[in-house]
Amino acid sequence: MGEFELIRRYFATVSCAGTGGEVALGIGDDCALLAVPPGEQLAVSTDTLVAGVHFPDPCDPMLLGQRALAVSASDLAAMGATPIGFTLALTLPRAEPDWIEALARGLDAMAGRCGMRLIGGDTTRGPLTLTLTVFGRVPAGQALTRRGARPGDLLCVGGGSLGDAAGALPLVLGEREAPAELAEPLLAQYWRPCPQLALGQALRGRASAALDISDGLLADCGHLAAASGVALRIEQARVPCSPALRAFAGEAGALVCALSGGDDYRLAFTLPPAELEALQARWPIAVIGQVEPGAGVYLVDAAGVRVEMPERGFTHF
Amino acid sequence: MGEFELIRRYFATVSCAGTGGEVALGIGDDCALLAVPPGEQLAVSTDTLVAGVHFPDPCDPMLLGQRALAVSASDLAAMGATPIGFTLALTLPRAEPDWIEALARGLDAMAGRCGMRLIGGDTTRGPLTLTLTVFGRVPAGQALTRRGARPGDLLCVGGGSLGDAAGALPLVLGEREAPAELAEPLLAQYWRPCPQLALGQALRGRASAALDISDGLLADCGHLAAASGVALRIEQARVPCSPALRAFAGEAGALVCALSGGDDYRLAFTLPPAELEALQARWPIAVIGQVEPGAGVYLVDAAGVRVEMPERGFTHF
Repeated sequence: MGEFELIRRYFATVSCAGTGGEVALGIGDDCALLAVPPGEQLAVSTDTLVAGVHFPDPCDPMLLGQRALAVSASDLAAMGATPIGFTLALTLPRAEPDWIEALARGLDAMAGRCGMRLIGGDTTRGPLTLTLTVFGRVPAGQALTRRGARPGDLLCVGGGSLGDAAGALPLVLGEREAPAELAEPLLAQYWRPCPQLALGQALRGRASAALDISDGLLADCGHLAAASGVALRIEQARVPCSPALRAFAGEAGALVCALSGGDDYRLAFTLPPAELEALQARWPIAVIGQVEPGAGVYLVDAAGVRVEMPERGFTHF
Repeated sequence: MGEFELIRRYFATVSCAGTGGEVALGIGDDCALLAVPPGEQLAVSTDTLVAGVHFPDPCDPMLLGQRALAVSASDLAAMGATPIGFTLALTLPRAEPDWIEALARGLDAMAGRCGMRLIGGDTTRGPLTLTLTVFGRVPAGQALTRRGARPGDLLCVGGGSLGDAAGALPLVLGEREAPAELAEPLLAQYWRPCPQLALGQALRGRASAALDISDGLLADCGHLAAASGVALRIEQARVPCSPALRAFAGEAGALVCALSGGDDYRLAFTLPPAELEALQARWPIAVIGQVEPGAGVYLVDAAGVRVEMPERGFTHF
C-alpha cells in the first residue's frame, strides 16, 4: 500500500468522516450519496487554496485545515444554508504522516464546529493545493442570493470587525512582529475565521440579498450592487474596525484593511428597515449604509460628503 | 477587471453553463443550488488532475477538458447515476485566453455528451491543476456500490477493450511513434474516454456491485473484492484487448496494459447469471470471471490453472 493510499485510509477514519443524517454513503466508493430532505435544495460551493498564494508555505497544517474549511463554509453561510459535508481534493508534494494528521485535526475541529462531515475526495501528488467543495441544505426558494436588494434597504455587516485578517498579513508572512495581545486577535481572524452560519440561517426570509466578504468589503458590495441592480452607499465612520487593528495598522491603515482587505468571511447583507430591530436583539449587526437607486458603491464621511475610495479588492501574496 | 475575473465571466457564458432541470441556481453567487427530485439521492465525486502527473504539460487544452470531465463522469456511471452538473476548480500559472477557450470547448463537448452543466467553481493562480466535482442523481437505495458481490455472480466489464489508454502513454509522452491507424484509436481512449453512463443506469437493480476501472483492472477488482468480502477469479484469456493495442504493445505488453494499466474508465461489475442474457442483448458486455468465496483477486489461464499476476496498479508519469 502506497503512502497516498494510507492517507486515504487515514482520512476515512478521522472523526469528521461517517454517515448518518443527509450522508447516505460516505468515503470509500466511486461517489458519496447525499439525501436532501424533501422541500429542500442542495447548496454547493468550491474553493481552492494554493500554497504561497492563498496561504504561506510552510505553515501550521492544523491552522491551514481550520482555515480551509472555514473559508468554504462561509459560502454556505452566505446562502443561509445548513452545512452537511465537504469533499477534500488534496494535492501534496510528498506524504508526511505528521503533517497530514495535523491537517486532518484542523479540518476536524472546524467540521465539528460547523456540523459537517468529510464525505469524499481525492489525494494526488503535486504542488500543495487544497480544493474543498462544501454542501449544505436550504428550504427550496429561501436561499439568500446576491439579487434582491431594494432601494431603502439597510446595508449591514454581521457581528464583529472587518479588516483584521488583512491586517494580520504582515504577521502571517513574518514581515512584522507585534506584542501577543495585538498579534493574537488579528492572527485568529486570519487562521480561524468564523463562518456566520447561524446568522445566515436567521436571515432567510428577512434579508433581501447577502454574500460573504472574501474579496474585501468594497469589492464584494460591488458584486451585490451589480447583481441586484442598485447602488450602495457606505458610511465610512460606521465600518467596524477592531481596537487591535487600529493599534497595529493605525487609523488610516485599519480603514483600508476594513474596506479593501480580503479574507473577512463575514456576511454583508441588505435588510428592509422593519427587520432590523428583531434581528439586532439576537445578533450583533452593524448597519454601515443604505441601498439606493443607481449603480456601484460609494463612500461618504460623517457629514454625508463623498470621499475617495481606497483601491478595491484583495491582495494575494 | 483582472484576467482571472475575465475567465470567470467567460466560463459563466459557455454553453455548458445555465440553469434548468435540477440546477436551480448556477454560476455567479456564493453557492450553486441543486434541486434533487423527490425519492432520489445526489451522487458526488471529486477528482484532481495535476499537470505532469495526470496529464502531460503542455498538452492540447481541448483534449484536456474532454478528458477531465470524462474521468469524473465515469464515477457517476459507476454508481448508476444520471449526471446533473459539475464544478471546476481551475488553477493556472497565467491567464491565456486562447488556452482557456480551448479548455472550455473540451469541457463543453463532454458536458453535452454527458448531459451536464457547469454550475460553479473557482479560478486561482498557481501550478496547473484541475479539480472537478461532479453531481448526479440516482433513485434512493438503488445506487451501485462496491459492496454486494456474491459467490456465483459473474464478473463483467462494460463494452470495449481494456488497456488502450495505458498502452497509449508512450504516444502521449512522445516517447514512441506509430502509424496513425494504430496511434489514433489508442490516443482516443487516453484523451477521450467514454464514461459508460447509460450502461451504469441499466445496471441498477441488476448488478450486485460495480466500480469504474481507473487504477487498473486488477487493482480495482481488488477494491471490489475487499468491499464485498469475496474473491474474484479472472480468466486471463477473456480479458478484452484491442487489435490496435496488441499490434502496438505486443501480446504480452497488451495483457499487462489491460490488467494493470490505469485510465480505462470502463465499468467492472458483478452480475447474477440470470441477468446476463437480457443485458447482453442491449449492451456489449464481456464476462471475464466469477465471484467466489474467499478474498482477493486471482488470474487463471485457459485451462483454469492459476498464473502469476503482473504488478498491480497504475503508473503515473
